[in-house]
Amino acid sequence: MKRYLLTISYNGTNYSGWQSQNNATTVQSVIEESIKQITSINVKLFASGRTDAGVHAVNQKAHFDIDSELDLVKFKKSINAVLPKDIVVKDISEVFLDFHARFNVKKKTYAYHINIGDRDVFCDDTELHFPKKLDIEKMKLAAKEFVGTYDFQAFCSSNTEVEDFVRTIYSLNIEENNNKLVIYISGSGFLYNMVRIIVGTLLDVGQGKKQVEDIKNIITSKNRALAGKTVSAKGLFLFNVEY
Amino acid sequence: MKRYLLTISYNGTNYSGWQSQNNATTVQSVIEESIKQITSINVKLFASGRTDAGVHAVNQKAHFDIDSELDLVKFKKSINAVLPKDIVVKDISEVFLDFHARFNVKKKTYAYHINIGDRDVFCDDTELHFPKKLDIEKMKLAAKEFVGTYDFQAFCSSNTEVEDFVRTIYSLNIEENNNKLVIYISGSGFLYNMVRIIVGTLLDVGQGKKQVEDIKNIITSKNRALAGKTVSAKGLFLFNVEY
Repeated sequence: MKRYLLTISYNGTNYSGWQSQNNATTVQSVIEESIKQITSINVKLFASGRTDAGVHAVNQKAHFDIDSELDLVKFKKSINAVLPKDIVVKDISEVFLDFHARFNVKKKTYAYHINIGDRDVFCDDTELHFPKKLDIEKMKLAAKEFVGTYDFQAFCSSNTEVEDFVRTIYSLNIEENNNKLVIYISGSGFLYNMVRIIVGTLLDVGQGKKQVEDIKNIITSKNRALAGKTVSAKGLFLFNVEY
Repeated sequence: MKRYLLTISYNGTNYSGWQSQNNATTVQSVIEESIKQITSINVKLFASGRTDAGVHAVNQKAHFDIDSELDLVKFKKSINAVLPKDIVVKDISEVFLDFHARFNVKKKTYAYHINIGDRDVFCDDTELHFPKKLDIEKMKLAAKEFVGTYDFQAFCSSNTEVEDFVRTIYSLNIEENNNKLVIYISGSGFLYNMVRIIVGTLLDVGQGKKQVEDIKNIITSKNRALAGKTVSAKGLFLFNVEY
């Protein structure tokens, strides 16, 4: 048996998220189907984590096992020829059998894209259109408050089975260019909707609805109601996964 | 009567081009409908020029006349609230009654986007995917051969009513970044499919199918069959119009 790791990019707009489920088209099921189509073998993909409906990936990672040795150059070419235009395999490499795409994750980075100017007709599915005056400097100060190891229950949607809400955020940077903001968040791992709630909270700070000093109190409260809204999935990109 | 000039951006993917025609959704007809919706007045738009089905615009210009004075800030807000998500009015200004969006054009710039690397799932409708080895330096040399005033009949699709094929190309630049090429072409005006045929010809040079020295001969020949293919509409953007 061989284990292979895929690096995958997808535009999540037309998918019910990553994970296979009945009666829904998911990224996982489409890729598994494509692998079957070119190898005639049923495989199961294990990703670094799920992404929700509408969420995109620049670099998602997923491994699978197969009872044959693959020609990697040929595999990449073949699978990209059968995959739909909104999913692409960027890389494939062989990994040890004890490697696991989810359990071995050391660091994950998400990017959230916001357009505060006129609507951009080329990015409607890939950014939040939020044409409001924002105090970006205050948002940058608030962003720093999230960095560290905390119980992030206040930034987790309630429908989760997780019991341990402690996560470490390594960095949270806001880049601004020409009315476009990209918020990069790197961490050990993320709770359900955590990135989208943090971004919603930063937008509250940018609008003066919350203060920089409120952030630590919201974290301490563990109260979801005190944090900002869960912003739209379409601005969210799984940017990178490191092992 | 007042005359107003619009700066418009659109994603051309879902439109049968700019110009109104029966039984087809066009950018012009959608904007005219939207103006009627917010002003209750029928207006006719005059653009800097048509764009074909699937072609995009970063900055298209079009004027219209109306028998009332518009509140420009309010107009922009109102029309963008009713326009579909793939069309946006970026600016509106009043112009003199003798200004004409088409006849007064001094310079037009098109951008053509090519991806020579892995498929980019976020740009499928907005770039040509052309994953081949290209000699970019030779393409840049060939690009220079087009600059000047020439009879460009060899670079014009045959279904045209134009009689004068002489046009001036002011500049033709190729920018390269991370497996993405953007070819910017500025000129006094362009023949039917001229930009797409020039790009197809440059791609032939990049692949070694044509030589830099062939360009001048193709121009002189006035023979469409000697130039390259008409590349896909989806990589083409009307980038700017200057008066």
